[in-house]
Amino acid sequence: MKSLVLEKQDELSLRDFPIERQEETLGPRDVRIKLHTVGICGSDVHYYTHGRIGPFVVNEPMILGHEASGTVIETGAEVASLKVGDRVCMEPGIPDPNSRATRLGMYNVDPAVRFWATPPVHGILRPTCVHPEAFTFKLPDSVSFAEAAMVEPLAVGVHAATKAMIKPGDIAVVMGAGPIGLVTALSALAGGCARVYVTDLAEKKLQIAESLSPAITGVDAAKESIVEKIKADTDGWGCDVVFEATGSPKAAAQVFEPLAPGGCVVMIGGQPDPISYDAGAAMIREARVENIFRYAHVFPRCVAMLASGAIDVKPLITRTFSFDESVRAFEIAASAPPADVKMQIELPQ
Amino acid sequence: MKSLVLEKQDELSLRDFPIERQEETLGPRDVRIKLHTVGICGSDVHYYTHGRIGPFVVNEPMILGHEASGTVIETGAEVASLKVGDRVCMEPGIPDPNSRATRLGMYNVDPAVRFWATPPVHGILRPTCVHPEAFTFKLPDSVSFAEAAMVEPLAVGVHAATKAMIKPGDIAVVMGAGPIGLVTALSALAGGCARVYVTDLAEKKLQIAESLSPAITGVDAAKESIVEKIKADTDGWGCDVVFEATGSPKAAAQVFEPLAPGGCVVMIGGQPDPISYDAGAAMIREARVENIFRYAHVFPRCVAMLASGAIDVKPLITRTFSFDESVRAFEIAASAPPADVKMQIELPQ
Amino acid sequence: MKSLVLEKQDELSLRDFPIERQEETLGPRDVRIKLHTVGICGSDVHYYTHGRIGPFVVNEPMILGHEASGTVIETGAEVASLKVGDRVCMEPGIPDPNSRATRLGMYNVDPAVRFWATPPVHGILRPTCVHPEAFTFKLPDSVSFAEAAMVEPLAVGVHAATKAMIKPGDIAVVMGAGPIGLVTALSALAGGCARVYVTDLAEKKLQIAESLSPAITGVDAAKESIVEKIKADTDGWGCDVVFEATGSPKAAAQVFEPLAPGGCVVMIGGQPDPISYDAGAAMIREARVENIFRYAHVFPRCVAMLASGAIDVKPLITRTFSFDESVRAFEIAASAPPADVKMQIELPQ
Amino acid sequence: MKSLVLEKQDELSLRDFPIERQEETLGPRDVRIKLHTVGICGSDVHYYTHGRIGPFVVNEPMILGHEASGTVIETGAEVASLKVGDRVCMEPGIPDPNSRATRLGMYNVDPAVRFWATPPVHGILRPTCVHPEAFTFKLPDSVSFAEAAMVEPLAVGVHAATKAMIKPGDIAVVMGAGPIGLVTALSALAGGCARVYVTDLAEKKLQIAESLSPAITGVDAAKESIVEKIKADTDGWGCDVVFEATGSPKAAAQVFEPLAPGGCVVMIGGQPDPISYDAGAAMIREARVENIFRYAHVFPRCVAMLASGAIDVKPLITRTFSFDESVRAFEIAASAPPADVKMQIELPQ
Repeated sequence: MKSLVLEKQDELSLRDFPIERQEETLGPRDVRIKLHTVGICGSDVHYYTHGRIGPFVVNEPMILGHEASGTVIETGAEVASLKVGDRVCMEPGIPDPNSRATRLGMYNVDPAVRFWATPPVHGILRPTCVHPEAFTFKLPDSVSFAEAAMVEPLAVGVHAATKAMIKPGDIAVVMGAGPIGLVTALSALAGGCARVYVTDLAEKKLQIAESLSPAITGVDAAKESIVEKIKADTDGWGCDVVFEATGSPKAAAQVFEPLAPGGCVVMIGGQPDPISYDAGAAMIREARVENIFRYAHVFPRCVAMLASGAIDVKPLITRTFSFDESVRAFEIAASAPPADVKMQIELPQ
Repeated sequence: MKSLVLEKQDELSLRDFPIERQEETLGPRDVRIKLHTVGICGSDVHYYTHGRIGPFVVNEPMILGHEASGTVIETGAEVASLKVGDRVCMEPGIPDPNSRATRLGMYNVDPAVRFWATPPVHGILRPTCVHPEAFTFKLPDSVSFAEAAMVEPLAVGVHAATKAMIKPGDIAVVMGAGPIGLVTALSALAGGCARVYVTDLAEKKLQIAESLSPAITGVDAAKESIVEKIKADTDGWGCDVVFEATGSPKAAAQVFEPLAPGGCVVMIGGQPDPISYDAGAAMIREARVENIFRYAHVFPRCVAMLASGAIDVKPLITRTFSFDESVRAFEIAASAPPADVKMQIELPQ
Repeated sequence: MKSLVLEKQDELSLRDFPIERQEETLGPRDVRIKLHTVGICGSDVHYYTHGRIGPFVVNEPMILGHEASGTVIETGAEVASLKVGDRVCMEPGIPDPNSRATRLGMYNVDPAVRFWATPPVHGILRPTCVHPEAFTFKLPDSVSFAEAAMVEPLAVGVHAATKAMIKPGDIAVVMGAGPIGLVTALSALAGGCARVYVTDLAEKKLQIAESLSPAITGVDAAKESIVEKIKADTDGWGCDVVFEATGSPKAAAQVFEPLAPGGCVVMIGGQPDPISYDAGAAMIREARVENIFRYAHVFPRCVAMLASGAIDVKPLITRTFSFDESVRAFEIAASAPPADVKMQIELPQ
Repeated sequence: MKSLVLEKQDELSLRDFPIERQEETLGPRDVRIKLHTVGICGSDVHYYTHGRIGPFVVNEPMILGHEASGTVIETGAEVASLKVGDRVCMEPGIPDPNSRATRLGMYNVDPAVRFWATPPVHGILRPTCVHPEAFTFKLPDSVSFAEAAMVEPLAVGVHAATKAMIKPGDIAVVMGAGPIGLVTALSALAGGCARVYVTDLAEKKLQIAESLSPAITGVDAAKESIVEKIKADTDGWGCDVVFEATGSPKAAAQVFEPLAPGGCVVMIGGQPDPISYDAGAAMIREARVENIFRYAHVFPRCVAMLASGAIDVKPLITRTFSFDESVRAFEIAASAPPADVKMQIELPQ
């Protein structure tokens, strides 16, 4: 069977690919998984179009993909919570269980994390993979493989909502209506917000945002001031939480303006360039700022919220491709059609 | 016009009642409100049937009612956020603004709080009342008077959910399916829980609980162990939050059993008798316990959640009486029909 | 008797000054205080040398001074906690007790706060003042007037330490060894830190810092990298808290570098210019940032810590002037002698 | 060389004892340690005098001791932070690194923890032991072996103080002046309290408590009401934190009485019998209760606080025995002389 290989920048091929023996060995606390559905993430596309993300450079052919669901086909000797045939989704980053950060419960900031499709670690657009039981999560019948492959991006939003320490009835602003902005908006509502304002410059994306819930209000940042809008809707008080999900320094410079006294800003979007901001705006509000990095401990929570109906990610899955079409899927994704939120690839079963 | 007066234990009358001049005086930061809808609370009924609650004794005729909505009909000279004609709901407890507890943001635990329908303070089953602007909350058009009169009991649930510091995707148990148990279940879901288990001994109440959301599971404590149920559904881990809303020492003694390590117990139900519990069960989980008293700062949050649809209290309003029928309404309430959650009284407009 | 009046930029005079009648009126919950000791703050000096701080402009003669202690000489009718003869210190900012921020317990961010020696509000380098009981704090015998006049600047450090949510045994860095940096270092130690590193460019200030406690290490930022120092001393892990107390954008841009994963940055120093920083450095650590504005609820805590010996501010009081010498005191303060931390003025008794 | 073996209840011997081969095998992330100093804990004495603690029964001969310091004499292949010759102290409980509780950062509540001198796990009153690097902590030169062997009991106090989330300037009550009560009082002061009241019935213990710091006030519970004392000293407000360290149900029933609104109770003392308490007393204060179990992540913090002088445990070490005298040391400890806080045993080097 074949894998989707990024040979080098701008060159993808669907071909046989030998994974080193070590990765194939099943440890006593590992499971072997047959992949079913894999979502295409912006980082996958960025490696394809740029050959690197910051310090991570694609120097050798690398399999792409890290948003995945599948089926357990073999279990290690000490695996207790999973069995062959279980439908599962998987957390793509594996930390050192004995690192100081991991022991403190913050495994996501362990520098030793090995993360799928981040050089030199291969992704999972391939037939099977071996994964630790501790980072593999069983799906209830009510959660489809497609939804389960959305758990990875959703986890970013849920982690952001968790760090915000939302109080029931909070009002939030999400800056950015891309895939991460949208899962953050859904997570903020599921996490207790009464109302979420989503800002963007693309009309189409705002329409998608508003279609997700009557409690979401889209604000076209080119036409309307989110600060004025929030002030008008909150008697001048401001919103409780601002989630920055654009990655744009210009947006990041304005996170404090709509914020209420004692409010919280969560920085989600990766910011390649320095951010310049007015410290006084943060101080007079005694703003708390949480900077987040991926997620920790939220996959089972995401699965539970999909199962209970607290969050519905199905409207975000806008196109599905067969594995044979996966190169073309990446070509389309690289052109970033504004009507597409998440494209997924289904592997042959 | 008439008021509903508890003359003494077991004796209610609908009659003219002179409120002292002082209460009628409109201060510069007060509003005068024409009452519209008033809910019947268990405490109102308890004063009717027992003539006292703990140290609070009905020694003189007292007007009942503290769950209320209405319309502003006059505003004090310095009132800025409200105007005549605004539809509002009101927080029934008024603290001393200069007390130490109030300044620290915990006005609900200020011993000087004056609370409607708590001797010697009159309630609001009467034509009009004067109330501070700061504790009067404007309703959006989408929130009816009936819903608004539910904000007071809902506030208990929302305060409990706030104190629990729910993380998105938490699993909760609510002990007790009375009115407070039900608003707590709704608040827990709106506040981030993926699933809520409600326990009670009354089949009918559990049916009502389950009808509120597909994410609520009723558990008949007489037939099924909530501890076993939770263990089975969480791979033996336990639930994240237990809300005690029965007021029964027997239930309170068991709050730690279904709880996961690091979980939280919120004690809501007033407990007239001492609670005896196994401290070891709390310790081996490092359980956090939050004891709550009424609520603080949550009325505007409740209104926002009703408006956004995050919480729907309409199914809890099971009967509505005209003001003329209010004595009979209390007689019915005193018999506690299991199919009734909340009875409300509408005043003549 | 005379007051110290800032007539306009660069012009101080010690002269009779009529305070408006309104300020002199004693309300039922006010006390009248005879001033004893007043510290000179950097903001007093800045008004003197620049005639303004940001939007606050000295357009009319204004009395300076807001760090004060004194003796109660008259009490309002409802005052219960204070009596004539009580030695006290006073919080210089008075909020609106009914504002939303105040009710939430964050009175320091109430925009309506009236703060001594901030135009158009007069300071207290004058014989007497009228102040609310709620913001006047009784001193135990063991706390001198001089120490008590240090409570105001100390409150900034204690508030910063409180917001940091220090865990016992934390390692902290304080950027800046000015008066606020020093009280922050003392507060961090008293608040649970095992060790505090203070950085500055002035050798003399670092010597003063180190003289305060054997648990304080001075780091000359011109000669030594605080990042390398912290890494070496923490096995590469980083420090738990960074307090920014310089007000310099260059320092503020580097707050994340010495920080451990999951650490906290507290922004204390007023930053007139925009701060430009690397968001990635904050994200990979999941840093929490607390922006603070003055203080709230900490004056009685400061008094308790001075009384118990948990904090000793006496070494920070480097010079004392009589009231007659107060103009000269400001001239000296304006030249910022590096060996001086806090100058105080004693009023005639 | 010999070990101190509890043969069965009431029978100790100092004799050769073969430890199973498995415990002696050095894994790649383990170190081998030559023991230096071991403190005698109440639990060691209880196993000696009763042969069991709750469900843990001494069915076979077991080596006692779990408060220990020593010297690294061999390191596993992957050990990076320690080298031969390092002076260290050790955490006695080793969790499963892959358990759910451990991954969440709460390894102390992992049911799989293996804890020294808890049947069937041997303690370390023996020549050498093998221990994971991750639970072995290097000592600076300024911390003696004797102080280092105090880190284990101190860790309970520091964990309790951490969970309390002390704010700088808090007032605390510690119920019980036994060894755990005393380390808790020291931890509360180091963690930010301005003043700590310690209650007990033994005059001698209260004298020891007061000798530790001028900020500690002893209260003889037989002669004086701690509730009245706290009320008098706080203008009726109450204390911020109550630490329950007696293990007595009678004391535990009264933890809420001295507590201020919004205060915190930390339950430390193991409570073999049920606790009966007045829930109303907890509710009207909206008390938070933290139940703790041993400690997590605090050993390096304790070492740092001993090194910096933030905590001084030397006055608590009241007697030291040679290893040859260790049976007699236990006999003396079993009689609980009131003037003794901590007895230690020094092993031959």
